[in-house]
Amino acid sequence: MSNKGILIVVSGPSGSGKGTLLQGLMQGNERIKYSVSATTRSPREGEVNGKNYFFVTREEFQQQIQSGGMLEFATYCGNYYGTPRRYVYDNLEAGYDVILEIDVAGATKLMEQGEPAVYIFIMPPSMQELKKRLVGRNTETNEVIEKRLNAAREEIAAAGRYNYIVVNDVIDDAIDKLKAIILCQKCKTVNMKYMIKEVLTDA
Amino acid sequence: MSNKGILIVVSGPSGSGKGTLLQGLMQGNERIKYSVSATTRSPREGEVNGKNYFFVTREEFQQQIQSGGMLEFATYCGNYYGTPRRYVYDNLEAGYDVILEIDVAGATKLMEQGEPAVYIFIMPPSMQELKKRLVGRNTETNEVIEKRLNAAREEIAAAGRYNYIVVNDVIDDAIDKLKAIILCQKCKTVNMKYMIKEVLTDA
Repeated sequence: MSNKGILIVVSGPSGSGKGTLLQGLMQGNERIKYSVSATTRSPREGEVNGKNYFFVTREEFQQQIQSGGMLEFATYCGNYYGTPRRYVYDNLEAGYDVILEIDVAGATKLMEQGEPAVYIFIMPPSMQELKKRLVGRNTETNEVIEKRLNAAREEIAAAGRYNYIVVNDVIDDAIDKLKAIILCQKCKTVNMKYMIKEVLTDA
Repeated sequence: MSNKGILIVVSGPSGSGKGTLLQGLMQGNERIKYSVSATTRSPREGEVNGKNYFFVTREEFQQQIQSGGMLEFATYCGNYYGTPRRYVYDNLEAGYDVILEIDVAGATKLMEQGEPAVYIFIMPPSMQELKKRLVGRNTETNEVIEKRLNAAREEIAAAGRYNYIVVNDVIDDAIDKLKAIILCQKCKTVNMKYMIKEVLTDA
């Protein structure tokens, strides 16, 4: 019997609303765990170890890389960021679905490694809408927003690599789609084949 | 832009509860059409042409076969049964999802023809439960029930050919799974790829 959870890799540009969608997806669902990344950068004010990130030293991180403890990792502004393999695998083994929110580069690495997962790309309904959302945050300079929009264009151009594309236009609709994608995986014949034997041998 | 509907082929043994599930799936959903089969057998009392079946003559049916008008067909007790291609394709083209409720033999033919569809098998939770449901109907002799159970075993053994297996244990859960499978197809990258171009060229 296949009780293992499903690894759900989610990417999407800054401003696509990934965070809100994932919160909505996880709300009240105890069968889903969110994979917390490890990083060597210092915690910012209010950030909690084990919740926002696992804050580790350079040495600890490098040791983890060498022992195969990182599912994927990257460096950004001189700091390491990565996904501790153990948390993910332990939870999958225990039957939880695990969400991995990572960027296109990280997700592409996992695809290339042949990591069995459902790859989902969160798409803004339009570039105008994305810009509106980024400007509406009122926290970034025009220059930063322009950079984010350019990064977004690059990420969106890579969306074709993913298994599913969910357009985040109406939030509740997009959450329903994420839920449907997960429930649908559970019904795949490859995950349900054990039932054929189970039903045929029960009488 | 991909506005075409999805062809949903549903099979499952007598007593699996297919009919109830499909009713629940279609209730209040105007985007789904149910494909009505054609047959050369005479209408039974209360059966309505175009609703239960399209009742046609042998000559009409054979003519349809020869002109490629039947998506699949079979003979049973000396009568023809088949799926008129036109109703299915016209509705798919118009953007409706179309449900085709056919037996394993018919579904297998469609798979072999490479018919693009989502193939779903409705599975009883157990043979005991299936028997209970068939006996509970109080309409069949023991002999007929035994025949149905044997047919069910054969059909269940073929469930591995389908894309999805939905166990009909709790009806509402099973309906949710059918809905999820359909919604999930719409999010597949192959069906959403147009959005990449659309978003990237909008600004």
